[in-house]
Amino acid sequence: MRVVISIGGSVLAPELDARRVEAHAAAIESLAREGCELGTVVGGGGVAREYIDAARGLGANEVQLDQIGIDVTRINARLLIAALGAGVNPAPAHSYEDAGEAIRRGDISVMGGVVPGQTTDAVAAALAEYVDADLLVYATSVDGVYSADPRSDDSAEKFEELTPEELVKVIAPMSTDAGSSAPVDLLAAKLIERAGMRTIVLDGTEPQRLERAVLRGDHEGTDIVP
Amino acid sequence: MRVVISIGGSVLAPELDARRVEAHAAAIESLAREGCELGTVVGGGGVAREYIDAARGLGANEVQLDQIGIDVTRINARLLIAALGAGVNPAPAHSYEDAGEAIRRGDISVMGGVVPGQTTDAVAAALAEYVDADLLVYATSVDGVYSADPRSDDSAEKFEELTPEELVKVIAPMSTDAGSSAPVDLLAAKLIERAGMRTIVLDGTEPQRLERAVLRGDHEGTDIVP
Amino acid sequence: MRVVISIGGSVLAPELDARRVEAHAAAIESLAREGCELGTVVGGGGVAREYIDAARGLGANEVQLDQIGIDVTRINARLLIAALGAGVNPAPAHSYEDAGEAIRRGDISVMGGVVPGQTTDAVAAALAEYVDADLLVYATSVDGVYSADPRSDDSAEKFEELTPEELVKVIAPMSTDAGSSAPVDLLAAKLIERAGMRTIVLDGTEPQRLERAVLRGDHEGTDIVP
Amino acid sequence: MRVVISIGGSVLAPELDARRVEAHAAAIESLAREGCELGTVVGGGGVAREYIDAARGLGANEVQLDQIGIDVTRINARLLIAALGAGVNPAPAHSYEDAGEAIRRGDISVMGGVVPGQTTDAVAAALAEYVDADLLVYATSVDGVYSADPRSDDSAEKFEELTPEELVKVIAPMSTDAGSSAPVDLLAAKLIERAGMRTIVLDGTEPQRLERAVLRGDHEGTDIVP
Amino acid sequence: MRVVISIGGSVLAPELDARRVEAHAAAIESLAREGCELGTVVGGGGVAREYIDAARGLGANEVQLDQIGIDVTRINARLLIAALGAGVNPAPAHSYEDAGEAIRRGDISVMGGVVPGQTTDAVAAALAEYVDADLLVYATSVDGVYSADPRSDDSAEKFEELTPEELVKVIAPMSTDAGSSAPVDLLAAKLIERAGMRTIVLDGTEPQRLERAVLRGDHEGTDIVP
Amino acid sequence: MRVVISIGGSVLAPELDARRVEAHAAAIESLAREGCELGTVVGGGGVAREYIDAARGLGANEVQLDQIGIDVTRINARLLIAALGAGVNPAPAHSYEDAGEAIRRGDISVMGGVVPGQTTDAVAAALAEYVDADLLVYATSVDGVYSADPRSDDSAEKFEELTPEELVKVIAPMSTDAGSSAPVDLLAAKLIERAGMRTIVLDGTEPQRLERAVLRGDHEGTDIVP
Repeated sequence: MRVVISIGGSVLAPELDARRVEAHAAAIESLAREGCELGTVVGGGGVAREYIDAARGLGANEVQLDQIGIDVTRINARLLIAALGAGVNPAPAHSYEDAGEAIRRGDISVMGGVVPGQTTDAVAAALAEYVDADLLVYATSVDGVYSADPRSDDSAEKFEELTPEELVKVIAPMSTDAGSSAPVDLLAAKLIERAGMRTIVLDGTEPQRLERAVLRGDHEGTDIVP
Repeated sequence: MRVVISIGGSVLAPELDARRVEAHAAAIESLAREGCELGTVVGGGGVAREYIDAARGLGANEVQLDQIGIDVTRINARLLIAALGAGVNPAPAHSYEDAGEAIRRGDISVMGGVVPGQTTDAVAAALAEYVDADLLVYATSVDGVYSADPRSDDSAEKFEELTPEELVKVIAPMSTDAGSSAPVDLLAAKLIERAGMRTIVLDGTEPQRLERAVLRGDHEGTDIVP
Repeated sequence: MRVVISIGGSVLAPELDARRVEAHAAAIESLAREGCELGTVVGGGGVAREYIDAARGLGANEVQLDQIGIDVTRINARLLIAALGAGVNPAPAHSYEDAGEAIRRGDISVMGGVVPGQTTDAVAAALAEYVDADLLVYATSVDGVYSADPRSDDSAEKFEELTPEELVKVIAPMSTDAGSSAPVDLLAAKLIERAGMRTIVLDGTEPQRLERAVLRGDHEGTDIVP
Repeated sequence: MRVVISIGGSVLAPELDARRVEAHAAAIESLAREGCELGTVVGGGGVAREYIDAARGLGANEVQLDQIGIDVTRINARLLIAALGAGVNPAPAHSYEDAGEAIRRGDISVMGGVVPGQTTDAVAAALAEYVDADLLVYATSVDGVYSADPRSDDSAEKFEELTPEELVKVIAPMSTDAGSSAPVDLLAAKLIERAGMRTIVLDGTEPQRLERAVLRGDHEGTDIVP
Repeated sequence: MRVVISIGGSVLAPELDARRVEAHAAAIESLAREGCELGTVVGGGGVAREYIDAARGLGANEVQLDQIGIDVTRINARLLIAALGAGVNPAPAHSYEDAGEAIRRGDISVMGGVVPGQTTDAVAAALAEYVDADLLVYATSVDGVYSADPRSDDSAEKFEELTPEELVKVIAPMSTDAGSSAPVDLLAAKLIERAGMRTIVLDGTEPQRLERAVLRGDHEGTDIVP
Repeated sequence: MRVVISIGGSVLAPELDARRVEAHAAAIESLAREGCELGTVVGGGGVAREYIDAARGLGANEVQLDQIGIDVTRINARLLIAALGAGVNPAPAHSYEDAGEAIRRGDISVMGGVVPGQTTDAVAAALAEYVDADLLVYATSVDGVYSADPRSDDSAEKFEELTPEELVKVIAPMSTDAGSSAPVDLLAAKLIERAGMRTIVLDGTEPQRLERAVLRGDHEGTDIVP
């Protein structure tokens, strides 16, 4: 089973903490032991936010801010690589081809962002497409896809299951609002739609749940089923 | 005045025709003579569509199809470069940094796609952000942004002016439909929104109109005004 | 047995046709199943010719035309890769080292042109040298090496067998004429000579014949035997 | 006058603070206005230390830690670039050749680390050699070269002037102690010696002093005079 | 006037001698002072031959030998760059695009070989094509193009002038013999032919003659006139 | 057992001699047959010295001289690769990541220098750190670490065993003298110290001794034991 896992920055590194990274590595390694082929995409987290705030204060434009964010995701990738040890490709992948090549050789691949204007959510979806993954998992700071922002709207309901087309329709209006809290960004949703990719959006703050979700489909999040 | 011009594939190369490419080059050169600093992003057109159809028939996945599309846009970039002659950077830029560097040195830069999952529409918006352009122009096969698809909906009305936020709201629902004919894709619209980028969407099939539009703001298309 | 196969553009893609590419892929896969290690070099074909004509009309010089041709061969390589599926290195090789590395790992490698001034015929000969191939096969649009151009000279006779030195002597005068129709270009012939490379030149328009030719030496073309 | 300035991480970014970066940028820009050609090398600072601590806790080896440190220096370079605005090469240089090329074109170049096992101190010395700089300045967190560690040894005396050979002799014993606080590392000192490079080591925490030191040789630090 | 100069290895570095390299640099600089735009391509010489002999003895194949030869030409390029000083691009160009870019910026470009299977003779011809040079000069160890090998055939006559087509016809039979001593290799001759490139083949052992030849067409070698 | 072997230029190639290279290759292959995973780093030797002398005479600065030296080490790496045959990665590694990747795949990796300002001694130590080697061996032209230069000081005594900290203390004063003959440079010693790397310094002029030293710890040189 080939799986691509997106670990949001707010989940992997809200602030730097070796133990949290270790817990995520442990979850990934247990999947590898079960025979999964694994590609991982990590976000920027707290350090990215601090750097971006500083750079914005210095007059950087949005693309320059994206580049700084990408650089931080790649350092986070190095942290996860250090924690994963022997079965991982030791260099963070900078392109889908590099990541795909590592996975074909039997390594776990870890990557961060690729290019300005594309979030790591979208990178994960594109990587899943590129390696013809059986499953794409978003480990995020919310526990699924909601009909509205659960932090501000009490009537927000979590979806148990959506088609990719429904996912796009749910996400699209959220992502046109400022301060959107869509758990997966719209470009990612559209890539999921075009690839018809089986996807799970779940709460990533307890990494040990990952194994159950991937191997047995047992989780509290949202299933995207084409 | 720094301008980024996106020339859609259906406008530059619906099929290969040296004279059409020459007309676009002439329009760009007249802007350069007027003192504009210019970045250009070109699409894939008919050849890209044919290659993508063939590759899909052979089982390529969507990211592989995107890569083929990117390769074709870069050949189209070589055509436009050949037509532009002396003042152009002779190598198609593969990244925003390369394109920005060429523009800083006083060259016209020509690029195609950058990475799977990102259209040349989005590349043009990101390049405009990166080089802090004063204006972004989409030369497309329709003559502006409509409230609906003018080819199928008689009640569709063309907008003379939109804010970037309005642009996103107009484009978002279109881009969730299959067979969408949004003149600019949603990721591009969202990049325009985050950068607050002054943008024009116009009919690119008559390149000689470009100069009037850029220099005097005189055109039949849609103005996006932050 | 290690084999390098050159598939001319006029054979793989006189015009774009997924079924023709599929037939070539099937022939290559059957060789792989028989235990051959395989490097493949593909030409430009009809799309290359159209782009080159357009670019020449726009004033591109010969090196720029070569670059466009190389770009097209690499897209053709992507088509063949898509058709080959799992056992192929998914990225077209851009250098002999990349191709050799893929072959060493047990993958089929597919590449197009490398650098201006060097045809894909010569690339195939250099790749065969580099990987110490046992056999080099040119699948071309003519069915062997003739004493003269069979399309214009009725007395032209096909050679059943030549030494590499004889090949060079036969090809050299052809390649000084305009409109030469040598089935293998002179630089390639000279590389075959310096490496003493066992080579077959055969009609590539019926790919299913490839297996018989490679495995049993049974073909209607010309054998180059050092 | 061609000057290479090393801004230690503990000086530029003990923690992230846009205003501090801005003050350093202002000092560099005032030198540029005075006609200096400028190469800048920045260190890692507090974020580097935090990432390295986390990665060490995860089992990373020293070379992997160096790579993380280099990545952070390059993000710091992006911050300084953002603050410097128009006259700076917008991409952090990754090699001496890239930095030298930018300086030759009249840009300010900013770079961080280059390769594991080489500190940014040494990078600055090598860059100064490569571009045949007239002056190399280390803006550090101590105010010069001392005979011993001034933080632990009351008898430590600051040198007003040293030859490069003397610098090496002073630094060498310091750098064999654990917890060394040499203001410039030994490899850097040896590069300064082999190039006979005019160098100043000064307190970098008040960037506005830089201009006086470079232009008029007026500073409280240590002069290295070949 | 844009000129590409090929300096054969046997002319620049039959053995390593700083003074000989300096004499070539002086000749090139005097052309630059006269306003020529200059691209230079250098060969391998004695060191290349020694390395290639050693590697052949160790079982390297012809492509590996070519790669070693290319590496040596690039070191020779560094020597010439060191001798040329300020107006030269300090990094040896590895591609036609890099060399062309340096020349466009007003630098002298120096390069060696590019890819296995292509001599530096051919590189010079391709570079001349790529930059639309007005003149290509081969500074070789013989003093022109002869009807036969002057070292072994007393009846060999030097040509004062040839068309590119005649050059190819003269060179072709020479280059099919072992131990050929053609002053320009056949691939180079064919590139000259396809580009219709004005070319001079002259004795390069006295570099001071170069200026007269380039600026006034006054030399004892062979003119190739399209 | 994972071993990194540094073969000094004065040991591998005092002058070019295929048989000497072959003897080193044979020693490395015998280690590979015994199951060692091997990374090799080679120096520049006589050719590097000649090129550097010539370039210094032409005014090259120290960084440019280093670059020439690095280029020569990489050609020497190609020689050793040619001699090693099938189990070696055919391209010289240019970075620690490339070398580490080759070793992970089961290949012998061969590399030369990496970056100006860093000797191949230091490269070997950094590579040993990066791949978590069990043992680092310096095959040098002296037969161990001495208390002083044995060539000029009769009282010099060879150390049988040192800790890494002692190694640094012994090397440091040597390396501040001009004409130092430290068998391992100071940066390398400091990298050995920070990694606590088990190291042997031995006479490399008789390669057949290598196997005994690595496999059984039986040698006449100096053991560095953390």
